[in-house]
Amino acid sequence: MIVIIHAHPFSQRSVAGRALLDAVRDLPGVQVRSLYDLYPDFSIDVRAEREALAGARLIVWQHPLLWYSVPALLKLWFDVVLVRGWAFGEGAAALANKDCLWVATTGAEAEAYTGTGVHGITLEALGLPIERIARMCGMRWLPPMIVHAAHRAGAEAVAAHGRAYRERLQPYLAHE
Amino acid sequence: MIVIIHAHPFSQRSVAGRALLDAVRDLPGVQVRSLYDLYPDFSIDVRAEREALAGARLIVWQHPLLWYSVPALLKLWFDVVLVRGWAFGEGAAALANKDCLWVATTGAEAEAYTGTGVHGITLEALGLPIERIARMCGMRWLPPMIVHAAHRAGAEAVAAHGRAYRERLQPYLAHE
Repeated sequence: MIVIIHAHPFSQRSVAGRALLDAVRDLPGVQVRSLYDLYPDFSIDVRAEREALAGARLIVWQHPLLWYSVPALLKLWFDVVLVRGWAFGEGAAALANKDCLWVATTGAEAEAYTGTGVHGITLEALGLPIERIARMCGMRWLPPMIVHAAHRAGAEAVAAHGRAYRERLQPYLAHE
Repeated sequence: MIVIIHAHPFSQRSVAGRALLDAVRDLPGVQVRSLYDLYPDFSIDVRAEREALAGARLIVWQHPLLWYSVPALLKLWFDVVLVRGWAFGEGAAALANKDCLWVATTGAEAEAYTGTGVHGITLEALGLPIERIARMCGMRWLPPMIVHAAHRAGAEAVAAHGRAYRERLQPYLAHE
């Protein structure tokens, strides 16, 4: 089973992110949890989140990059769901050995995320704290999927990303 | 004027963070905005936040490090207060040339934040995305103040950090 934790604060403005989701949400065993739809008031049902994660072999964190990190509600999800005694720390292994895929869409072109680009920081550097979260919880960190300039990508490029996304999820589908 | 944006989700459990605040909150021209007290329901009053920042020469972001980053409510503050057209982007310069001081307290000892430490990532690397936010808004990034193993620090160590904090704020006080 695959659980996609999806966080987009302005889903009406999401083009690529929504297309990516639409490319995979019908796959057998995929559960999409769109946090901003589930918890518009920021009161996360921690128990429901944990129950959803229990059977997952793959956990996906999908979001637009917002201020060089995850949107606030996904950060809150990290803060309240992934706590010591459940996700990490002595005897806690709720997420151990699950795989973790980071899917980030960006507003800017790839070259903006270089040492000399407008953002002056690489996606690799921005991904590192996210990766450390996954690893602290005993998860396996997969090579991330980054979609740059998502809102300006043409329909063909978006469709290609969707196909690539499906392929990434293939090994985890319910019927296999 | 100095505005301290303070974010601690469990302020009862805050020892060093509270001591730091207590060491500076009586200084002339210091305004402390404790986000989790102001907005326990996560509905940030964007207008009030912006008005508070308007007169500041120094903006401080003070928080415990939580999952390698700021607590969720401070991330929300970044997401909703520091938006294009106000904080950055064409013609937007609300925070330009203000100074920005990052004050982070950590649960772990300094050696945990090394390539070989339990967290496998340095404070420098973790600070970079925060620094980029400040710089995108045209602010000057000051050398950060990091207090390690805050909850285990003795009273004397905490007091010394408090004095250091006061000194860092000295050049910005109202009477100068």
